[in-house]
Amino acid sequence: MRSSWGRQVVYSIFGESHGTGIGITIHHLPSGFKPDFDRIRSELDRRKPGTGIHATSRKETDEYEIISGVLNGTLTGAPLTLFFPNSDTRSKDYLNLAVTPRPSHADYTAHIKYDGFNDGRGGGHFSGRLTAPMVFAGALVTQLLEKLGVSIGSRISRMGLVEDYPQTLDERLINRIASGELKALTLPFLSEDAREDANTLLTHLRKKGDSIGGQIELCITGVPVGWGEPIFDSLESSISHLMFSVPGVKAIEFGAGTEFAKMKGSEANDPWIQKEGHIETTTNHSGGINGGISNGMPLQFKVTFRPISSISIPQKTVNLETGRAEILEVKGRHDPCIVPRACPVVEAVTAIALLEAMLDQQIQEKEVWR
Amino acid sequence: MRSSWGRQVVYSIFGESHGTGIGITIHHLPSGFKPDFDRIRSELDRRKPGTGIHATSRKETDEYEIISGVLNGTLTGAPLTLFFPNSDTRSKDYLNLAVTPRPSHADYTAHIKYDGFNDGRGGGHFSGRLTAPMVFAGALVTQLLEKLGVSIGSRISRMGLVEDYPQTLDERLINRIASGELKALTLPFLSEDAREDANTLLTHLRKKGDSIGGQIELCITGVPVGWGEPIFDSLESSISHLMFSVPGVKAIEFGAGTEFAKMKGSEANDPWIQKEGHIETTTNHSGGINGGISNGMPLQFKVTFRPISSISIPQKTVNLETGRAEILEVKGRHDPCIVPRACPVVEAVTAIALLEAMLDQQIQEKEVWR
Amino acid sequence: MRSSWGRQVVYSIFGESHGTGIGITIHHLPSGFKPDFDRIRSELDRRKPGTGIHATSRKETDEYEIISGVLNGTLTGAPLTLFFPNSDTRSKDYLNLAVTPRPSHADYTAHIKYDGFNDGRGGGHFSGRLTAPMVFAGALVTQLLEKLGVSIGSRISRMGLVEDYPQTLDERLINRIASGELKALTLPFLSEDAREDANTLLTHLRKKGDSIGGQIELCITGVPVGWGEPIFDSLESSISHLMFSVPGVKAIEFGAGTEFAKMKGSEANDPWIQKEGHIETTTNHSGGINGGISNGMPLQFKVTFRPISSISIPQKTVNLETGRAEILEVKGRHDPCIVPRACPVVEAVTAIALLEAMLDQQIQEKEVWR
Amino acid sequence: MRSSWGRQVVYSIFGESHGTGIGITIHHLPSGFKPDFDRIRSELDRRKPGTGIHATSRKETDEYEIISGVLNGTLTGAPLTLFFPNSDTRSKDYLNLAVTPRPSHADYTAHIKYDGFNDGRGGGHFSGRLTAPMVFAGALVTQLLEKLGVSIGSRISRMGLVEDYPQTLDERLINRIASGELKALTLPFLSEDAREDANTLLTHLRKKGDSIGGQIELCITGVPVGWGEPIFDSLESSISHLMFSVPGVKAIEFGAGTEFAKMKGSEANDPWIQKEGHIETTTNHSGGINGGISNGMPLQFKVTFRPISSISIPQKTVNLETGRAEILEVKGRHDPCIVPRACPVVEAVTAIALLEAMLDQQIQEKEVWR
Repeated sequence: MRSSWGRQVVYSIFGESHGTGIGITIHHLPSGFKPDFDRIRSELDRRKPGTGIHATSRKETDEYEIISGVLNGTLTGAPLTLFFPNSDTRSKDYLNLAVTPRPSHADYTAHIKYDGFNDGRGGGHFSGRLTAPMVFAGALVTQLLEKLGVSIGSRISRMGLVEDYPQTLDERLINRIASGELKALTLPFLSEDAREDANTLLTHLRKKGDSIGGQIELCITGVPVGWGEPIFDSLESSISHLMFSVPGVKAIEFGAGTEFAKMKGSEANDPWIQKEGHIETTTNHSGGINGGISNGMPLQFKVTFRPISSISIPQKTVNLETGRAEILEVKGRHDPCIVPRACPVVEAVTAIALLEAMLDQQIQEKEVWR
Repeated sequence: MRSSWGRQVVYSIFGESHGTGIGITIHHLPSGFKPDFDRIRSELDRRKPGTGIHATSRKETDEYEIISGVLNGTLTGAPLTLFFPNSDTRSKDYLNLAVTPRPSHADYTAHIKYDGFNDGRGGGHFSGRLTAPMVFAGALVTQLLEKLGVSIGSRISRMGLVEDYPQTLDERLINRIASGELKALTLPFLSEDAREDANTLLTHLRKKGDSIGGQIELCITGVPVGWGEPIFDSLESSISHLMFSVPGVKAIEFGAGTEFAKMKGSEANDPWIQKEGHIETTTNHSGGINGGISNGMPLQFKVTFRPISSISIPQKTVNLETGRAEILEVKGRHDPCIVPRACPVVEAVTAIALLEAMLDQQIQEKEVWR
Repeated sequence: MRSSWGRQVVYSIFGESHGTGIGITIHHLPSGFKPDFDRIRSELDRRKPGTGIHATSRKETDEYEIISGVLNGTLTGAPLTLFFPNSDTRSKDYLNLAVTPRPSHADYTAHIKYDGFNDGRGGGHFSGRLTAPMVFAGALVTQLLEKLGVSIGSRISRMGLVEDYPQTLDERLINRIASGELKALTLPFLSEDAREDANTLLTHLRKKGDSIGGQIELCITGVPVGWGEPIFDSLESSISHLMFSVPGVKAIEFGAGTEFAKMKGSEANDPWIQKEGHIETTTNHSGGINGGISNGMPLQFKVTFRPISSISIPQKTVNLETGRAEILEVKGRHDPCIVPRACPVVEAVTAIALLEAMLDQQIQEKEVWR
Repeated sequence: MRSSWGRQVVYSIFGESHGTGIGITIHHLPSGFKPDFDRIRSELDRRKPGTGIHATSRKETDEYEIISGVLNGTLTGAPLTLFFPNSDTRSKDYLNLAVTPRPSHADYTAHIKYDGFNDGRGGGHFSGRLTAPMVFAGALVTQLLEKLGVSIGSRISRMGLVEDYPQTLDERLINRIASGELKALTLPFLSEDAREDANTLLTHLRKKGDSIGGQIELCITGVPVGWGEPIFDSLESSISHLMFSVPGVKAIEFGAGTEFAKMKGSEANDPWIQKEGHIETTTNHSGGINGGISNGMPLQFKVTFRPISSISIPQKTVNLETGRAEILEVKGRHDPCIVPRACPVVEAVTAIALLEAMLDQQIQEKEVWR
């Protein structure tokens, strides 16, 4: 496994769910920046299990220790390493999963790929717990982006049959999402009705031992024209690359997304207009990206999560040792829906992708070369 | 712009639509392989403009010259460089586009990002013509993958309101698609009705000067269990990264894709069963990937293209020099729908992503280390 | 700072000399390998301060904790993270070094580069202590290379005016070095006389508070023909890249090295002969590398270390706050010569470079593609 | 082969000595820069064979064609591709070299590595001709560095027994070298005596059909404090990485280089002094680099080239087909010494390494983050 990403800033993730702990090293951060660790804490709390009423009962504290890279609360420029010690691990809950793989989980693929030598306890390095260091990293670099005027926010746009307001939003709603206004909510829908319906749904699912999928929409304001590149480093490429690094993500759509398949050019194209001295578009079907490059409009994209595969309803599997069919009842502690806790994660990896694009764009900014 | 991708095999793309020509250098190919250049030719022909009845009238011949890396029809192991000279370029058609940017096209973002120094003629390096070297590269590495038992194919699953058979396909249809059976068709739907309807639709759009979006489904068989990695190098990450490098792609969905948002875990999970001595799943909602790693089932994913933004219907834009609103009528030669010609392109980048995953997996195959 | 290296296996180093601790994450190791941790321990002991009679009095224990990537003593395939907690740090010894930078030390460059925000205590991330994780990593991957028949060893070829046997060695001596026979020695010269002279020299220098430079020769046997690449990934390129990552290295010479400047082609060329069914050369001026690629002969190269810059003899410096000249007397604990302790470090980074070259060469080994 | 390098700006080299031609693609250059192509031409002329009186008689014109990335003489920001068509190739001179490999040449290693499928004509991708695109790239990025105040120059410091002025130079001589004053000379020694002696030596060697090694010293002024990183991306690491990509380079020494092995710390350390409002050192044994980072003093390092291995004196080799010893007399056109023509090449790769370090340092320059 190569759990390392980035050309400018490099993110190196390590650890297993039920080992000593997990963590991340972030290379090439700017020295002299003073992160607001309280705000990072609150992002970690949004992701933390056991907070929502419907959430897993595992009490991860998500307490971390800074190993290196920070002195007197300020970045030193040296690699920043963060360590989250593990606690409250019930490995015995998972003991049989290597032999009877959970449907649609990584148990089987990891077992075959690593020839049975992988640490399967609690999902090991495949565990959703590995998103905690992602959230830390993203929350930190978000603060760098904020200094440049960028705001990143998200909302749940769908959970099962519960839908929030439709996808094409007006400027006011986009700004509400991007501003992070919904961060305080356990179920960050814009619509209060949707929040109530989702609440009912989750209570029902928890009782049944079932789970549900969902969709998150991200809105980012303040990105200037010019981030991203035409081919391999298109903004969509780097955002999607990181988004599919988040466990459970199975689809991503920029702007009008899958709806584009039904649209005509004359409907889909976003007309340019002059407004208060700058250029913008009257619609934002492009989701703020043209030719792989930010166009100055809000970035908008949607990410679909599959339902959590660990459910307590009995399921068909095969015993890998005996080769016989078995019925599996997954025990352990699992959320009925990952989507509320996933919001800070998808915001975090968005920030990581945007910082990279911004740093790549710096080569254009040396006036002396013109 | 950094039009280079790959850690194992490295792909470096160059050229502009209306310059001397375009091309690609592919580094780190295995020596001794004898590509079937006729089959590569026919993949280029599938992408070539001017072939379909509804296609652009620009007569690109897509003739190429091999500059290096091949001797006596065999790969030497040295960087393989391919050059497609440009011809039949009508740059005057594009002269005004830098000043009056086409809605939803890269004209504006490129102009701002590169401070007006970019070659805007015919889209320059942003042109869809740059997919020709991608197709060459993909068609070549597809042949390497075929030696390992992998088959890659695609179909048009939707074009506007014209839909092919529904998404969840039975094994027989998946195999038909993966086998490349549809490659000979100008409109590669499975359903003959859909082909006829699409034909009618395209004729209509061409007359109107409008365009339409669409969706392609890819089916890949023969990928063994174990390609891809849990986090940053998940199979979904590298496939989506490359897919969004293709101009016009705005969404990608693996397996059940956006439908997952509505599904319960008990519906979505793919049960494991024993079948003829190996393990497989009874459904394939996961699209052949669990935890970022291939699970031995066919890979299935869908890619949505926006309608081509260059339409001849008058559109609102702004004159960047005068700052005044203008009405733009795009001349030049453009397809009403890019999707038929895009099939070989999306197959090509899929092959590139899969070869990378296969080469990464080699470290697991040294028996001497167990 | 970006303390991450590698395309195949990725090495990510973190930590500061006087912070919580230091460590490394190694990504993409093969699962199922069972490292001999005792042998890794003994490599760390060779590097450890305070072992030799002339060594620093700082008692680093170099005890480490495995955080992830190992289960039941076997590699899981997940990122392997190692943590060396710091202890016995006397930061007050270094308090004034940020203001009055040590000549030829990184104090000044780090201070300016990171705008004074770097952790200067004990050299921070620039400390020689950061070579401990390098030794761990190298000692581990050396064991992978040994399974393929590769042996890596070194000797001190010079320390001040004390010289070991001359550079061009016969096969028997090369094998003695490569076999690791000298590893048990505190001063690993081949010649006993040289060991005695060096001993006298170091006693003298310790008394004076001065230091001395030196040179290490590396000999590697068992590398097959074909590792390395012609241009950017030449074996010399990757070995030298990593070698200059080791603090204090200022020169590297392959084969006859700087002597080549005085040689004629007719003297320098290594004639090919047939010997016991394979091809080899009668001399090894090339150091086992032709055109960037291993030629089947032993790899031989020499690395020169500058004398340790921290000496207790008074030196001229400038007070960065007052701008006035000052006389600096460095306190703290420092070796008179780093070279003996550097042997396991240069062997370690050699192993890291060779593993990369071997993994890159795998693409040539798929018989199915011929 | 992976002939691609760079994380910020990416350089992708292609082509073979006796194929269609050779070239390079440079990704991620800044748009809007107007290179002085005449000066690039004159750098190519310095490298060009057949210019010096002692040079090879092959008449390479080194004419090139710009394929992409330049419009109206200005960089567009798109990948810049350059193509040097081959001409005057006498492949029959090389026909037997694959079977009877030249001593110390890449004939044998390439043959084994690529299983006989490599293009061996004229060295193929291993040919020294591949340094032409390096020179183009380096000459171009040198102009970017010059705008930042950096000057890069070199001199021949040794050729066989002919030595130029000793290594430790005074400021005036360093500035003469860095300024490029010697570029006009066929034999760029500082000393006129050395030029005459070298002339005599080369005449003699040409008659004998032998060759000679040599050493180049590089002097770079104007590099500010702070380029380079402590560990893997030390300035020495990236410079040496690229330097060993140049055919024939076998040693590199920074500052006092191999002499450090004989020096005490009290002699080797460079004392800090205050001078005209800034800090500098009274000596420059460190070669301008401390802890991997530029310290504001001139960068100084020496590169040793082996004598060209292609000599016309009969040499021992083995016929790979028959397995029998043979006597090889290399025909073809070869210089007696590569060093004069290598000066623009080593300057070029130095520029490439420095630009990368400068671009990496940009993350520190965002005032908004302090």
